[in-house]
Order: sequence, then C-alpha cells, then structure tokens
Amino acid sequence: MEKKWVYLFDELDQAEAYIGASWDAVRGLLGGKGANLAEMVRIGVPVPPGFTISTEACNEYLAHGGAFPAGMWDQAITGLEKVEALSGRKFGDAHNPLLVSCRSGAKFSMPGMMDTVLNIGLNEDTTQGMIALTANPRFVFDAYRRLIQMFGSVVMGLADEPFEEVLSRARRKASVKVDSELTAEDLQEVIAEFKKIFRRMSNRDFPAEPYEQLRMATAAVFESWNGRRAVDYRKAAGIAHDLGTAVSIVAMVFGNMGETSATGVAMTRNSTTGEKDIEGDYLTNAQGEDVVAGIRMTKEINHLIKEMPETYAEFLGIAKRLEQHYRDMQDVEFTIEKGKLWMLQTRNGKRSAQAAVRIAVDMATEKLITREEAVLRVTPEQVDFFMHPQFDHLTKQEAKTAGGLLATGLNVSPGAAVGMVAFDADLAENWAKNDNKAVIMVRPETKPDDVHGMLAARGILTSRGGRTSHAALVARQFGRPAVVGVSALEIDLNDRLMRVGDTVIKEGEWISIDGTDGEVYLGKLKAVVPDIKDPWLIKLLRWADEFRRLGVRANADYPRDAQRAREYGAEGIGLCRTEHMFFEPVRLAFFQKMIMTDLPSERREALENLLPFQRDDFAGLFRIMNGLPVIIRLIDPPLHEFLPNISDLMHELADLKIRMQHAPTLAQVDDLLEQVRLKENLLKRAKALDEANPMLGMRGVRLGIMIPELTRMQVRAVFEAACLVASEGVDVHPEIMIPLTSHVNELKRQRDVLETEAKKVMDEQRYPVDYKFGTMIEIPRAALTADKIADFSQFFSFGTNDLTQTTFGISRDDAEASFLVPYISAGILPDNPFATIDPEGVGALMRIAMEKARRVKPGLVCGICGEHGGDPTSIELCHKLGLDYVSCSPFRVPIARLAAAHAALKEQKTGP
Amino acid sequence: MEKKWVYLFDELDQAEAYIGASWDAVRGLLGGKGANLAEMVRIGVPVPPGFTISTEACNEYLAHGGAFPAGMWDQAITGLEKVEALSGRKFGDAHNPLLVSCRSGAKFSMPGMMDTVLNIGLNEDTTQGMIALTANPRFVFDAYRRLIQMFGSVVMGLADEPFEEVLSRARRKASVKVDSELTAEDLQEVIAEFKKIFRRMSNRDFPAEPYEQLRMATAAVFESWNGRRAVDYRKAAGIAHDLGTAVSIVAMVFGNMGETSATGVAMTRNSTTGEKDIEGDYLTNAQGEDVVAGIRMTKEINHLIKEMPETYAEFLGIAKRLEQHYRDMQDVEFTIEKGKLWMLQTRNGKRSAQAAVRIAVDMATEKLITREEAVLRVTPEQVDFFMHPQFDHLTKQEAKTAGGLLATGLNVSPGAAVGMVAFDADLAENWAKNDNKAVIMVRPETKPDDVHGMLAARGILTSRGGRTSHAALVARQFGRPAVVGVSALEIDLNDRLMRVGDTVIKEGEWISIDGTDGEVYLGKLKAVVPDIKDPWLIKLLRWADEFRRLGVRANADYPRDAQRAREYGAEGIGLCRTEHMFFEPVRLAFFQKMIMTDLPSERREALENLLPFQRDDFAGLFRIMNGLPVIIRLIDPPLHEFLPNISDLMHELADLKIRMQHAPTLAQVDDLLEQVRLKENLLKRAKALDEANPMLGMRGVRLGIMIPELTRMQVRAVFEAACLVASEGVDVHPEIMIPLTSHVNELKRQRDVLETEAKKVMDEQRYPVDYKFGTMIEIPRAALTADKIADFSQFFSFGTNDLTQTTFGISRDDAEASFLVPYISAGILPDNPFATIDPEGVGALMRIAMEKARRVKPGLVCGICGEHGGDPTSIELCHKLGLDYVSCSPFRVPIARLAAAHAALKEQKTGP
Repeated sequence: MEKKWVYLFDELDQAEAYIGASWDAVRGLLGGKGANLAEMVRIGVPVPPGFTISTEACNEYLAHGGAFPAGMWDQAITGLEKVEALSGRKFGDAHNPLLVSCRSGAKFSMPGMMDTVLNIGLNEDTTQGMIALTANPRFVFDAYRRLIQMFGSVVMGLADEPFEEVLSRARRKASVKVDSELTAEDLQEVIAEFKKIFRRMSNRDFPAEPYEQLRMATAAVFESWNGRRAVDYRKAAGIAHDLGTAVSIVAMVFGNMGETSATGVAMTRNSTTGEKDIEGDYLTNAQGEDVVAGIRMTKEINHLIKEMPETYAEFLGIAKRLEQHYRDMQDVEFTIEKGKLWMLQTRNGKRSAQAAVRIAVDMATEKLITREEAVLRVTPEQVDFFMHPQFDHLTKQEAKTAGGLLATGLNVSPGAAVGMVAFDADLAENWAKNDNKAVIMVRPETKPDDVHGMLAARGILTSRGGRTSHAALVARQFGRPAVVGVSALEIDLNDRLMRVGDTVIKEGEWISIDGTDGEVYLGKLKAVVPDIKDPWLIKLLRWADEFRRLGVRANADYPRDAQRAREYGAEGIGLCRTEHMFFEPVRLAFFQKMIMTDLPSERREALENLLPFQRDDFAGLFRIMNGLPVIIRLIDPPLHEFLPNISDLMHELADLKIRMQHAPTLAQVDDLLEQVRLKENLLKRAKALDEANPMLGMRGVRLGIMIPELTRMQVRAVFEAACLVASEGVDVHPEIMIPLTSHVNELKRQRDVLETEAKKVMDEQRYPVDYKFGTMIEIPRAALTADKIADFSQFFSFGTNDLTQTTFGISRDDAEASFLVPYISAGILPDNPFATIDPEGVGALMRIAMEKARRVKPGLVCGICGEHGGDPTSIELCHKLGLDYVSCSPFRVPIARLAAAHAALKEQKTGP
Repeated sequence: MEKKWVYLFDELDQAEAYIGASWDAVRGLLGGKGANLAEMVRIGVPVPPGFTISTEACNEYLAHGGAFPAGMWDQAITGLEKVEALSGRKFGDAHNPLLVSCRSGAKFSMPGMMDTVLNIGLNEDTTQGMIALTANPRFVFDAYRRLIQMFGSVVMGLADEPFEEVLSRARRKASVKVDSELTAEDLQEVIAEFKKIFRRMSNRDFPAEPYEQLRMATAAVFESWNGRRAVDYRKAAGIAHDLGTAVSIVAMVFGNMGETSATGVAMTRNSTTGEKDIEGDYLTNAQGEDVVAGIRMTKEINHLIKEMPETYAEFLGIAKRLEQHYRDMQDVEFTIEKGKLWMLQTRNGKRSAQAAVRIAVDMATEKLITREEAVLRVTPEQVDFFMHPQFDHLTKQEAKTAGGLLATGLNVSPGAAVGMVAFDADLAENWAKNDNKAVIMVRPETKPDDVHGMLAARGILTSRGGRTSHAALVARQFGRPAVVGVSALEIDLNDRLMRVGDTVIKEGEWISIDGTDGEVYLGKLKAVVPDIKDPWLIKLLRWADEFRRLGVRANADYPRDAQRAREYGAEGIGLCRTEHMFFEPVRLAFFQKMIMTDLPSERREALENLLPFQRDDFAGLFRIMNGLPVIIRLIDPPLHEFLPNISDLMHELADLKIRMQHAPTLAQVDDLLEQVRLKENLLKRAKALDEANPMLGMRGVRLGIMIPELTRMQVRAVFEAACLVASEGVDVHPEIMIPLTSHVNELKRQRDVLETEAKKVMDEQRYPVDYKFGTMIEIPRAALTADKIADFSQFFSFGTNDLTQTTFGISRDDAEASFLVPYISAGILPDNPFATIDPEGVGALMRIAMEKARRVKPGLVCGICGEHGGDPTSIELCHKLGLDYVSCSPFRVPIARLAAAHAALKEQKTGP
C-alpha cells in the first residue's frame, strides 16, 4: 500500500494509529499547527476544512533533491477534493472558487521558516467569482495583489521593495495616505504592475494556475526548513535538524462577507486579572487584520450577544470546551462567515503574573487541573512580580491616554522606577547619595565605569543595547528596573537633554520607567507594591509548601527583616550576620577600641561593653522566630573594615597638620595635636591590618581563633539572650555557625571555646539551651574534606558567594566592575556565577561535600545561605543535591517556596 | 613443655624457629638490642656472653599484676649459669665475681624507659674479689657507688640530688674538683653514705644479694614499659602499647684491667668525607666513659696496630665483617679485656651529607648494596647540603680550637650565615636594604612583626624557642640559616648587646652561625659552597635519573637561570614567567605606556616597542635549552603592579604641589605643573586599576582576553624567536601556557588568538615551529572541569601556589604575616601548605583533575610548576598522582631528581 503523506483534519486517528497516540509524536508528524487544527476538529469545534502534509514528506523531499515523494501530490489533490466537498466550493473555479492558505508548521515553533501564503487560488478568473460572491471588488483585488506580493517574496524569494514602491506611487497618484484608501480601480493598476515586476525579477509569469500556486507554495515551505535563518535558529536552540516541517492547507473563510460576517480574537479569561470572564474584540464585516490594525473601532466580545446571539452562544460553548480540553486559558481567533462560526486558531493565552496565579488556582479549584499542575504553571518570576513596586494597569492606561507614554524599549529588568534624569554615573551617584534624590540614569549605553551610578539610581534607561547588554545584565543583577534599546530616544550629552520626537526632557526632569513592560513615561507615575497578601498567591504558595522537599529559611540580621521573613513564610533564619550589628555608631566606638588596644584588659572591657547590645539583638530575633531555628554566624569580615579607610585618614591627617601650622593659640595647637595622635594611631593600626587580599585574609574563623575573646563574647550574648527569652516563654533554637572554615582543626578549636562558654552561661542561668554547632562550607578545601568536617558539625550551610569567589578565583567586587560583564556578554561564561550557581565547578564541589559528609553523618542538616538561595535555577540544583533547605533574602522567600516545589514536582515527573 | 622466655645470645635460631625468621619478628621478641647482640654472636663476632628475656615475658608480667611468668626466673638463672660457664666467673662469688649489666630493649628505640643498670653483682664481698682481679680499688669502689646510685634512681625511683650532694661534700672535703680525683678511701665513705640514703629514702637496705639485685632490675625494666613518659612517647609516635620490652643481661667486661686492656669507639668509614678509612679513638687501661669524657687524651684507632697488632687485625676483620653483614657503615663500641677483644655494640653510623653520598656510591660500586639502595640511602636534605653555603669542618675546628665557638643551640634551618648582629627587625631591614650590610638578626624570640627583618637578614639567631617556634618555621620557609633556643645567650635589648658567659657582643659586631649544626661563632668564618660537581653526587644523581619516572624541569625566567638549570640536570623549562622581563627600566616605560593609553594605536605602538625585547629574551632561553621543551607562560600579574604604588604617588603629588607654591620662577612652575599632570594621570590609572583583591582580579588569562593585543605580541615574540634560533640550528620546542584559566571558554578564545598569530609568523618566516598550547591548573574550577579543559590543551601544569591560595581561601602574602605561622605552631595545620602540598585539599583537587583529564586525553602531559615542585614530600605526591614531571627552581633540581627516584623506588617496594 502506498505510504500516507497527507492527513485530513478528521484523520487524526489515522495519524495516531500510525505514529502512536502521544501528543508529542503527533506534533512530530503533523507539526504543531496541523496537530492543533486536527485536534479541534476531533473535539467538534468548527474549523475550516483542510489537511496537513506530513513532516515525513518534507524529509523525503529534502533527501531526494527537491522531489515530492511518490504519491504525495496525488494524496494532496485528493485531500483538496474533500475540502472542496466540505466547503461547497471548487479550487480554481471561476464562479465559486475555493481559496486556501498554506502554512508551515514544525514540531516546535521556529522563526526563520516560511510562514504563510494566503489566498492561494486567486487569478484573473477566480477574482471575478470572488467579486460575485462578496460583492466587494476592492477586497478581492486587495487580496489578489497581496497574493502576488506574498508569493513573490515568500515563495520566489523576491525583494519586497519594488512592490512597495508601486504601492507608494499608487498612493501618491490617488492622493491618499494608506493602502486601505486605494480604490478597486487603483488596485487593479497595482496588480498589473506587480505582475510585471514578478516577471522581470523571477524570469517567469506569476503562476495563474491555482494548482501550480499550491504546488510551488508547498515546495517553498519544505525548502524553508533548510533556510539559513532556520538552520541557525535550530543550532542555537538545540533543535534536531531531521524533524522537518509539515504543511497545512486550509480553506480560506471570510469575515467580510456582509453584516452576518465578523472576525475577532478572544481570551477565555481575563488576561490581566485572571477573573473568569471572557475578554476579546471583534468587528463585523471585516477581516482579521482589521481587528489588530486599530483602524476601525472594535467592539467588546460580549456585544456579540446582541448582534448574533446564537453564534455568541455557540462561541461561548466552544471557548469553554477548548479550555476544558486544553486545560488552560485559551487565546482564540475566529471568523464568522455569513453567520457560520469558524475557529481559526487556539493556543494557550499569555497573561499577567497576577492572572497567571489566579487562573492556576481557580482551575485547580474547578478541578480542571491538579494542584501540582497549578503550582507548576506559575513561574518564580511571576511570583517575583508581587514583590516589586509596579505601575498598575490603570495608572499606565491613564498616562497613555494623556499622551504620557514617551517611548517603548526592551523590558530587561522588571519593576517600576520614578526619578530625575541624570546623564552620567557620577552625577547619578552624587544626586542619589548626597542629595538623596531619586534618579533614573540615562545613557546611550553603559560601560563598567558606570556601575556606581547604576547602583545609586532607581532605574536605568538606555537608547541602545539588547537583552544581554551591559546595562541589562547589571540591572537584572542588582534588581534595578531597566528599559534598554529605546531607539526612539535621542540623547544629547552636550546639551544635557534627550528628545523623543518633539518632546524634550532636560537633565533633572522627572520620568517613570516600567521595566516589566519596557515603557518610558513622562513625569512621576504612582507605583504600587502589588499585594503579597493576594489570596490566590497565598493559596498557591500553600500548595507549593505541600509539594516541596526543601525547607525555606531567610537571611535576616535585624528583627524587622526577621518579621518580614516570617510573614513571607520563612521556616527559620538561615543566616544572621552578626557583624552588621557592630556598625551602629555607639557600638562601632567600642568595637574600634577592641581593635585598637594591645592590652587584654582593655580588649575585654570593650567586648563587655558590646555584649548587652548583641544580647538584645539576638533576643529580638529569637522572639520573632519563636519555635524556629535561628542560625547565628560569628563575626566574619576582616577587622580593618571597622576602621576608617587609610587614604581618608592620610588626607585628614594632612588637613589637621596644616590647621596646626595656622592655629592661633597654643591651646588649639594642643587640641589639634591630640586629634593628630588619635588619627595617627588609627592609621597605624589600619596599616597593620591592611591586607593585599582581605577576602583571603584574616577573617572568618581565623579571627575567632586569633581573638578567642571575641568568640566567647558572641557565644555568651547568644546564650544569655536564649536564656532570657526562654524565661519569657519563647521556644528558642539558636545554631552557632563558624564562617570560612578550611580545616577541621579550626572547627575543633572553636567548638571547644563555644562549649566551655555555653556551659558557663547555661550553668549561670540554669537553663539548658537547645543549640547546635555548625559551619559554613564556603572554601573549596572545606567541601573537599567535608567528611572530616562533618565529624565536628551538626549542620552545614553552603556559602556559595565565597565558594564561587574561591572556586573561580574571582573577587566579585573587582570582577563585576571589570571583566565579568564582558565575559558574560561574550558568552565566555554562560551565566553570572554570582546569580546562578555554576553547576560544573561550584556545584561539583557541593556534590562532593554532600556525598562525603552524608557518608559519615547521614542525617547532617545541610543548607545554603549564599545569595543563590533565592535563585530558582540554583534552588533546583540544591534540591537535586539533597540539601535540606535554602536560605535567602526575605523578599525572595515566596519565590524560593515556589521554586522548591517546582524542583520537587519536576523530579517526580522525570526522576531524580 | 614449658614456654621459653629466655634466649641465650647463641639461641637466635631457636627464637627464629619460634617467631619466624624475619628480622622484624625477631626484634619484636628480643628487642632491638637483644636481637643485635645475638646476631653478632651468630656471625662469630666476640660478644660478652649474655641472654635476653623476651618481650612476651614482659607482657605476661604486666598482665598479671607484676608477677614473672611461671618458669621465667628459673630459665634466667639457668641462662646466668651458662654465662658463668662461658666467662669463667661466678655471679656473687667473692673471689672471681661475674658482674652483669641489665638493659631494656624494645622493638623500637624509645626514650622514657629504664635504660641500663651496670655492675650488677657488686656488694661488700664481691668488691673485694674485683679488687683482687683488677688491682684497682678506686675503680671498683667507684663502680660500686655507681651501682647503688643507679639502682636507687633507676630501679627504686629515688631522687638523684641527695646522692649528688654526698659526692659534692666529698669533693669539698678532699679539696678536689672532679669525682675522678676522689681516692678509694674517699669513695668508701661515699658508699657508706649512699647506703644510708638508700635506706632512708626507700625504707629498705640496698640489696646486697646479687640475685636480688638482678631480679629487681629485671622487674624495673618491665615496669618502665608502662611509665608515663614511655606511654606518652608511644602515643605521640603511634607505637602499639602491647609490644612490651625485652631485658638483656650481659656479662660485664673491663677495659681497665691493665695495659693489655683498652676500650674505644670507631666508625668503619670516615663519617665526614666518606672515605673508606676506619676512624676512631681508644684508650688503654680505661673504661668506655673515659673515651667520651675527654679527660685523657685519646689515641687514634690505627695507633692500636703498634700497641696490639694482633687484636687490631682482629678488630679490622670484625669491622669489615660487620659492614658486610649489615651492609652499611657501622659505629661500634669495643673493649679489650686482658688482650681479649669484645664488641659491645654495633649500629649504623651517623655521617655528614657528603659522607652519606660517597659511602652510598662506594658501597654500590663495591656491590655491597644495589644502586637502588644507594639512591634510597641519601635523603633529599643531604643533597640540599651541596646547594647551600656551609662552613667546612676544618674552618669550624680551627675556630673551636681558637675558642671562637660561642654557643650551641637547635639547628633548625641549614646553611652558613655571616653577618653583623642586629637586635630588631627594622634595623636589620634598614642595614640590609639601605646599607647593603650582611646582617644576622638576633632576638630572644621572633613574632610575626619581625618577618620583614628576618627576610632581610642572612641568618636568624634566638635565645628561646624550639624546632616549631616562629623563628624556626619562618627561617626554614624562606631558606634562612637559623639557630634557635641558644639558652646560653643573654640578650640585653636596652644596652643593645648580648652575653655568653663573660663574652660580650655589641650590636653591629660580626658573628657566624651554622644552621646545619646549630653553632654560633664569634667573628667572620669563611663559608664555602660545597661542590655540586662532587663526582659521587653526580654518579648518585645519574643513578637516580635511571630509577625515576617523573621528569624534572626548572622554573627559569632568564638565560642565566636556564644555564644553571641545565647544569643541574633540568630536562626543560617548566615555567618561564614572562612578566619579569617587563620590569627592567626601559621596558617598564613602554609597558606603562601600554597601560596608560586608551588609544588603540598608542597601545599597539607600545607593544611593538616591547616585542624585540621579548623576542631576544626568548631566543636566549631557546638557545640554552636546545633540544628541550620551554614552557612560556603569558603575562600573569595584574597591571597595577607595573605602576607606582598609590600612596607613594599621593605623597609625591603633595610634595610637587608644595614645591610649586614656593617655585621662584614661572618656568619652574610650568615644569612642576607638567610633572603634576603626569603623576595625576598615573594616579588616576592606578586608582582605576586598583582592586580590593588583586589576587582574584584582573590578571592571568583575563588580561589576555581583555587585551588580546598583549597576547598577540607575546605569541609573536615567542614564534619570531623560535624561527630565529631555528635558523641558527637550534632545536626549539616552545610551549605556550595560559595562566589562571577557570573556564574552558577562556582557553578556546586564547587558542584562537594564538593560532592566528602563530600561523602568521610561521608563514612570514616560512618555518613550522613545533609548539604546544596548554594551561596552568591553578584555580579549583579548572581542576574540577579538567575534562572539558583538556579538550583544548596539549599540556597541564599545576600551579600549586595559587591553587593552595584558592583552595584554602588564604592569601599567602597576608597569611604568613598574620595567622599562618600561629596556625602551624598550634598544630591547626600540620604543615605549611605553601611548603608541602596539602594532600587532603589541594592534593584531592589534583587527583580529580588528573582523573578527569586523563579519562578524555590519556596522553596529556601533566606537570607542576608551583614551588612545591622542589619539595620531596610533594614530589612523592606528584609521582603517586601520575604527573609526568615536576618543575622547580634550578637550585632544587638535584633534590627533585633524587626525590623523584625515591618516590619511584618506594612505589616498587610497596606498590602504588
């Protein structure tokens, strides 16, 4: 029997019988579009008749140097005859002509391939038939000239410009502005010109024969599979080259056949809010493109109930059926031809973050999808939407109506920002830091030198650059809303202003940018923080909590952070950085005393003064985290960070000395002299503590070992605070964490100090604190010797910031300002390893650490407290590595909860 | 049958039959001493008769609460009877008494156990018999008082001071200075006093009964196995606690029985030079201790040929036999009792480094040992001796004779140093750097603050501290000769002088220290660099070359280093650091221009100016390394290292501005203004290039990627030089090495640049250079992704300096001045990881890298070029990891050759 190359839309069962029933296999054979149309037919949705030539035919065609496989064309003709029968028209018939469209459709949506040729079947004869059918010669001639132009460029590969020139001349001749104003007569002249151009450029006449048109269009679709752009795209996207494309040939239907015809688009639910209300627009007696072109005022979809109540009822039924069938909100296109409803396309609808959450939750509640599916349908980025200030839809709509939308560009970093325009980084920083102004930094494009200004600014706007431009990368990195590549923007750095068309904005004037949608507005728009208490979000996250295996904790140093973390669902504190507490003025004075003295008694005294502050801080955290674990990391940064900077001190000293030279009285000299002595002491100590590479120097556990009094003070503060809050009825679980361990012996030593002091306090206070002792794993050596280190730890927390720095040999502070951004732009690094864990290097070390540690201590609690703890890709890696929890900034906690659920659910699907 | 507890020296075969013939097992049963004495008996060497009570008896004794096992004492008595028969004397006999010694002897030599009780068997009766036999009452009474004293302290655990007080009183009474001047009568009084003390302190009489003496001594030996010092020692040394100790009981012989008696010590070869001449000293009519005490002038051993020619001949025969039997140079003790030669002990002799080499080579040439054994008998440290200045033996002897030896201390870091005394680090540095003086830094002990002075000094001397003191660690680390813990030294920092006894040395006076032997001399001794061309050393190293599997290359940046490396046997250059070439003044000016400009044309011009210099440098290396590979590493350090330091620039600018204020003429102002501009530019660029952590910043391959012109210039210089020397007939093999790779994509990029430029030059010069392209593995990520990196490399070189820094998260520069030395002293780190590769961390990464790389590219050439490449322990690790070569400083090449051979030979013995 001859191989079947052609499948009518109602032959989906045959395709399934041949290829297997999986949707994936069917899409492989019929392409996405063809399979979807056939699927609609199967479930009884009215679709214009048509058929699909399989991807196998395409592959055969390409394998045999451009010859249709035996029997294919005959099968296509037979298919076409069935379409003629179903439609009641005849292909090429002068009186009752059938027109068809011809579309490519590969398994995966893919730019660079021939897309569509419409109106196939039109020629001098059939135009007359169409005019008779539609009574609209202008429409028919326009369709015909479009066919010639589309066929020329798409099938024959002719340049489009000569065709456009003809239209342009015709408009000038008719003194009209747009093509739609050209009359039927004008268009007839255009058609004559088009045919001449076609002949001159392709050395042949435009094929008047409909079958010839169809044959050539089909072959062109096949060939476009190997077009350069398509091949490049497949290479980049990692799509196999042997899939081939299918060709779908569908009867054309027309919404412009009088007042009982119409065309429109609709979403089955509200795509902004997610409410369960159909939304859409339509036009009667119109073509599909008229709805989107915005020339005629469209009508809201529910108006159709008045104009065509029965058809509307049918439409609502179909919409519901499609949603039920595809189990998601659908974005549909339809045409009503003389009262008969045809669905032309259905696909999952795009929606706002808010709508995505609500639709997912509602559909799960309706039992249309499972809770697992609901959770998987919302992306962590969509949850992130709820965490950033945003301009709401209405505000933006009002601004647009008032003409406030200045320009649009690429939405490279989400969120809303309002500020004064500053045209360079120094000014941006100066205004922001010194004058406390809100600034939007505006540049043609940004360079590493600009980073300080970008950090100081509320948002970033550039006229050039794309999604991977420096501005985009830095903005995403640091969470600054940004719009880039706004080509309408002309920036004049000399005159310190920018122009969009006639509008001029001077430096210092206010603008608002929407990084979520890529829009730039004049003036100050009101930004809102979307409601994290959105009930659908809360429900969704609660479901996510049921599915995830990873715990989610927060990095929080202050009670206010801890409070927020708890509200956002954190299950404990994964990192409290105790050193931040030393930077407040009163405490800093004591801490500097501790650093400056060489006398043990003075050092002890300074530490005793600090103790009550630390105790209060910890007590505050413990109260809020009642019942949950709180990991307190002992002091980490090098001591010189607590002293003034050396070059500042040098400048200050020089100033003081000059003032001394000119001091009018001896008393003043004495006074200045005293100050000089103080500064000189500070300078001396600062120099002594100065390090070539402080990141790799005297910090972390090394401090604790060299200054055990410091460890003792911090431990005492933790245990005194724990005993205090326990006496108030708080359920307290402190966990002491040692930073920067590289050798197990460091940990042994610190544990001895800790246990001695802890026991002392617990004896004094007569309360046995339930505490743990553990370490950061943030140095490669710690990961490599994790088995030994596990012997002396009750928990591990991966410090992936430092681990990334040491594993790559990259100082983050230095690198981001110099080579890291160019590295990422040039593709030397696939991602910023400080944003997403590098799986091959840092991830490999984490795997080694987990395997070694769990081998000796199977129940060891392992978490992560680097910034990666809030990054969805990194969270998935942590899940796969078997960590117990992630800890991240309070603002990332909801995202982490969802991402952790995704990781678990994906694993259920695919196995670990 | 009753278990055998006691073995006569001629019953070695029975012991072997019981315990197995292995020397190890026999030593386990009889202890080292007992086994050795029995062995001498077996090979026919005259040894005084005796027997050994086995370690099994000791264990039984200890297991049963201090009771001799059944039968043991009877067997000992029987043994003693045989000894009586052999010696012709009788234990306890008043007329012809046998005296014995009783010694402990465990399998391993072990301090803290009871050592020896001599003269057992003496009492009031037997002293008379001995006097009759020796006609020397003074000697006999002295022996008796020693027995009581030794028995008291060693067996009974009595304090020694009361006994010493008695002696002291006796000396005063007799108005003599030393004990040997006491007469027989004096000693009889001492004996009476000793007995009283014994009774008072132990509540019992000194046991007059010889069998009782022997029984108690034996039991005391057994008990000393569980003495506290012995237990502690075993714990520290990792020796099992159940080995037990044996007891050897040997007939005493006496060298002081008249002119046909003598006693002496000898080495079977010259222990200083290694020449094959017996060396030693003896005294006639004397006891062993007289020879070492130095009271009487000893005679050279070959003088014996005149005094007792037959005995001397016998002695020479025995010496030869012992050497043949033990297959090593022997250190022997002997006694001649009335013309009869007795050997009391033999053991492998200690020797100088020079002697060690010569003896090993000679013995292999004599076929006494194999070449493999010869190579294994010389330590890498002994080869190191040939590389450092040393004081020769004669110079030191002369200085000693002239009273120049000031004091001795611990020899913690080898080599000779001569310099002026400086009592603090700042002065030491100042004198050394500014006045170019040779300095010995002298401190009571050193602290991290002193390191700059220690580095500037030629040698280090301290009055306190031990082998692991700060001074010792730092000195070894940096190769400075050092003597520490010289307790005779009183340092007076106020008066800036030091005293040894009455000798006063003021700051600035000359001293000489010998770190090899731990000696301090007054004045300037002449140091010599031992001859690296020593023919025995050359032969030994040639043998080592045959056995080693690891290649040995050198790190050399200049032709003169390369020349030395080749002379010392390097098989190529493993690392040429190209940046050193940029620091010479003319070149530095061009290099700074390259850094300062933003104009590509100026940058290109500066690089073009540098090209000829680099080409000449490389050509010089290639000529010397004719036929051998030369690895050239592209520029590594951050660019700011080539600019003046920021705070210097700030000071200079301030000075210039002040000078400008006071400039008398406008022309001078202009001139100064120009200088200010220059400095300001330098400062601006230096600040722009300044990094928080330059070690992890913009350096290595990152420079090459950001400034590809730099890579191109260096590649061009290498290939032009290669073509040039090839035209002169040189066989040239350059290998280009990329530093600091962390991602394979960096390597890909650099390889593209390299291949393009290399091809250009080779086309221009029409010569196909045989080159390779590879990378350092010095970043953890590179090791972890070595499989991917291997795809783009033809060789790997482990940069273990940086790999240690990143794996530990330790900046070497900072750490050595702060926490690293305390870490090592406190045992937190077992070794300095910058001296010896940390096997658990850095070694683990190297293993991962080797395994991954060799899996994808089995023949990949892998080496090491960190400083560890010259460290014997690290070399053994490299051998085990399967590296192909080590590369080290030229001075370490001979050491590396030997260490590599050791690694291979040890592996043959034990398996990999």
